[in-house]
Amino acid sequence: MSASLAMRADGDRLPVLTRHVDQKAIDAYAEASGDFNPIHVDPDYASTGPFGRTIAHGLMTLAYVAEMLNDWSGGAFDETGEIDVAFVAPVFAGDMLEVTGLVEEMVVRDGTECARVKLLVSAGGRQILAGHAIQPIKNLGN
Amino acid sequence: MSASLAMRADGDRLPVLTRHVDQKAIDAYAEASGDFNPIHVDPDYASTGPFGRTIAHGLMTLAYVAEMLNDWSGGAFDETGEIDVAFVAPVFAGDMLEVTGLVEEMVVRDGTECARVKLLVSAGGRQILAGHAIQPIKNLGN
Repeated sequence: MSASLAMRADGDRLPVLTRHVDQKAIDAYAEASGDFNPIHVDPDYASTGPFGRTIAHGLMTLAYVAEMLNDWSGGAFDETGEIDVAFVAPVFAGDMLEVTGLVEEMVVRDGTECARVKLLVSAGGRQILAGHAIQPIKNLGN
Repeated sequence: MSASLAMRADGDRLPVLTRHVDQKAIDAYAEASGDFNPIHVDPDYASTGPFGRTIAHGLMTLAYVAEMLNDWSGGAFDETGEIDVAFVAPVFAGDMLEVTGLVEEMVVRDGTECARVKLLVSAGGRQILAGHAIQPIKNLGN
């Protein structure tokens, strides 16, 4: 088993990305994505809803997960990565989001060696999503 | 079998969402997501790459898919939908993206009736992604 120069060994911890998800960041994501659901962008409306405050778009959190995976893999995730996630708790406006992962094992898919990464995403002590990424590992060095 | 007020019958075509994905829109998405990979935001760099031009972030396209599914389901996709996609071709800066879907069948998941939607996403005659969404259907009327 060998891994690329950008990857670390089985069992390794991935980089930690932290983001302060404030209302300004959520508004910017709404603008860019076209999703202006008031649960995301209208604090007055959201104050009467189930959470009492606005929440980030799920795909905004997923964008940060992708950023972390690209940081880790030198951009390879964008090209060849796969991801499977379920959102289990909301990210609230004002949360400090922490995104990282753990290489749980190496697996072979279609003859290609891949790292199977458990995603670790939390905010305020709450688990935000459950999921894995699969990243093919190229042998850059040999 | 019955469907919610916001849903249409088995076999129905979902709404069509079209977006002109220009460099300004891609730049806004980079800003909001934190992904400034030059393949997305630097036309000079991208001109020397495999596509000869910048491409949109995959998650940007996925955000438009989510928007269309939320339009269709009255926001239910955000709450309860699932999605499984693979990106098969890039969206280039300047492309007119067309996003829609087709309810292929009704399925039961964990005792809940769901629409299984084939996603139809194209730009310039090219298929952009392959995938499905699963949307639980609530019986709002009875």
